[in-house]
Amino acid sequence: MVTLINGTGQRRILLTGGSGFVGAAVAHQLAATGRTVALLLRANGDRSRLKSLPAPPLIIEGDLTQPGSWERKIADFRPDAVAHLAWRGVKGKDRDNREQCDNVTASLRLHDAAVAAGCRRFVGLGSQAEYGPCSARIDESVPTRPTTLYGASKLSTYLMLDRLAAKDAVSFAWLRLFSSYGPGDDPSWLIPYITSELLSGRRPKLTAAEQMWDYIHVDDVAAGVIALCDSDATGVFNIGSGKAVPLRDIISAVRDLVDPTLPVGFGELPYRPDQVMHLEADITALSAATGWRPKVPLEIGLRYTVEWYRGVLRE
Amino acid sequence: MVTLINGTGQRRILLTGGSGFVGAAVAHQLAATGRTVALLLRANGDRSRLKSLPAPPLIIEGDLTQPGSWERKIADFRPDAVAHLAWRGVKGKDRDNREQCDNVTASLRLHDAAVAAGCRRFVGLGSQAEYGPCSARIDESVPTRPTTLYGASKLSTYLMLDRLAAKDAVSFAWLRLFSSYGPGDDPSWLIPYITSELLSGRRPKLTAAEQMWDYIHVDDVAAGVIALCDSDATGVFNIGSGKAVPLRDIISAVRDLVDPTLPVGFGELPYRPDQVMHLEADITALSAATGWRPKVPLEIGLRYTVEWYRGVLRE
Repeated sequence: MVTLINGTGQRRILLTGGSGFVGAAVAHQLAATGRTVALLLRANGDRSRLKSLPAPPLIIEGDLTQPGSWERKIADFRPDAVAHLAWRGVKGKDRDNREQCDNVTASLRLHDAAVAAGCRRFVGLGSQAEYGPCSARIDESVPTRPTTLYGASKLSTYLMLDRLAAKDAVSFAWLRLFSSYGPGDDPSWLIPYITSELLSGRRPKLTAAEQMWDYIHVDDVAAGVIALCDSDATGVFNIGSGKAVPLRDIISAVRDLVDPTLPVGFGELPYRPDQVMHLEADITALSAATGWRPKVPLEIGLRYTVEWYRGVLRE
Repeated sequence: MVTLINGTGQRRILLTGGSGFVGAAVAHQLAATGRTVALLLRANGDRSRLKSLPAPPLIIEGDLTQPGSWERKIADFRPDAVAHLAWRGVKGKDRDNREQCDNVTASLRLHDAAVAAGCRRFVGLGSQAEYGPCSARIDESVPTRPTTLYGASKLSTYLMLDRLAAKDAVSFAWLRLFSSYGPGDDPSWLIPYITSELLSGRRPKLTAAEQMWDYIHVDDVAAGVIALCDSDATGVFNIGSGKAVPLRDIISAVRDLVDPTLPVGFGELPYRPDQVMHLEADITALSAATGWRPKVPLEIGLRYTVEWYRGVLRE
């Protein structure tokens, strides 16, 4: 559909959400490979995840929920591709907040600005939450039945961006992310929670943790985002490790990395009534379209993650 | 979930989109049965379909795309139920307009105002376009794959209203309307087009018209909307006649009503590349939930429709 701007497949990328967990991983990977990138960031947001970039990035300050000078600055940057990862309310506790809906309009406004800037490639980050509870290996043909406002807002964003892209001759792809992990994740998620509890000498209370779960390292997610930005593949693509493992094994592995003698309270908490017992991404489509494959083995990824938390707690 | 405000099941209804084709039919039916209703209408919209109401309706002027004084007026009216039919861009030619997306935010703003007014029942009007092309008898479990911005925006509105309703303890139902017909429909649709062409002595050019199509009379749609407002049934409900008939038969019936000797150009136009050949609503769910059933036989509905157009052309 669209053709690459230069022969290297290295498009100029406008990244939103670059201060977030996944976004910062994308920013680091782009910086490490010398790519031309601009980060669209809110003026007063937390940028701590960007401190370790090798050089100060090109930043466009702006708030997608409001018109501003950021649209013109995007036009000045002339991105070849937009990687849209910004989203307000990604923590578990925020997933039914009314503010979720504002992300939809914000995303549409970004689309308009990208089109006005002559950009013809748009990659957005969705979520497995768009499918809703579904105990299975999930490919992209599974019907979408979200049960949170987060999932509904992500799906709505996809539905409208997809149609706007068709209308405006933009090549559009939408990644549905399953569970990710890695250094710097929000401490409310399971792996960071377990890790910090154990490192702090506390005994985490847990369910029986028999779920089969698909965890992908954040660096693999970032590589998938970039691969998709450089491709012209369109449509929905799941992104996960492609392999579910028992949650109990992941927790035990973290415990062994911290201290194999520590106790863990398996079975001390009940499952949630709507607990999904099997969550696994079928990633055939993304691999076929871009050649991307996850590269970080779970045991290696967990080891570096635990080491990172150990460092943080020491500071 | 919620209980009826009074024993009669006759809730005070706030109706949006009351000046539209379906909305005006709802307004007339509510007026005819002496119901308490307020119409939320834009200040400068066309209200010609409301001229024949038996008495001037209670009107709240407001634009859902913007905050205003309408929210407070809704609170003053104290609706028991909202029937949300307002939508900008319902004509075929508007179905990929950027403005479709504004309907989503407008609908969410209406939800907020209804909740603030203490309203605990919300019925919204969706469309079969949410399912996307699907040559089959469609029940509500069919996966949604819209191919127009109209369908994507309707579906997004449903997805987010459904989750907001759950959060705000509002009993919420969403009607997916198939093809409707009746007096006063927009002249761009098939039945009005054929009728006016024939009545004006022109010979309409047509496809072979072998499609099986589900047409429901607008008065039956209105009755379904009202039945759902008075019920506490939640979820998605298709609304159609429940019976597809060959489009050719409908067109021939219109021709016979106008003048059986008139020629019709069947087969003079090709089908659209994405022509759906069978569109039929499974209406079991709505009937089971509310007792509603379509009552206007197609031959009677068409006769009155043709008579109405004859009257209009005479004026």
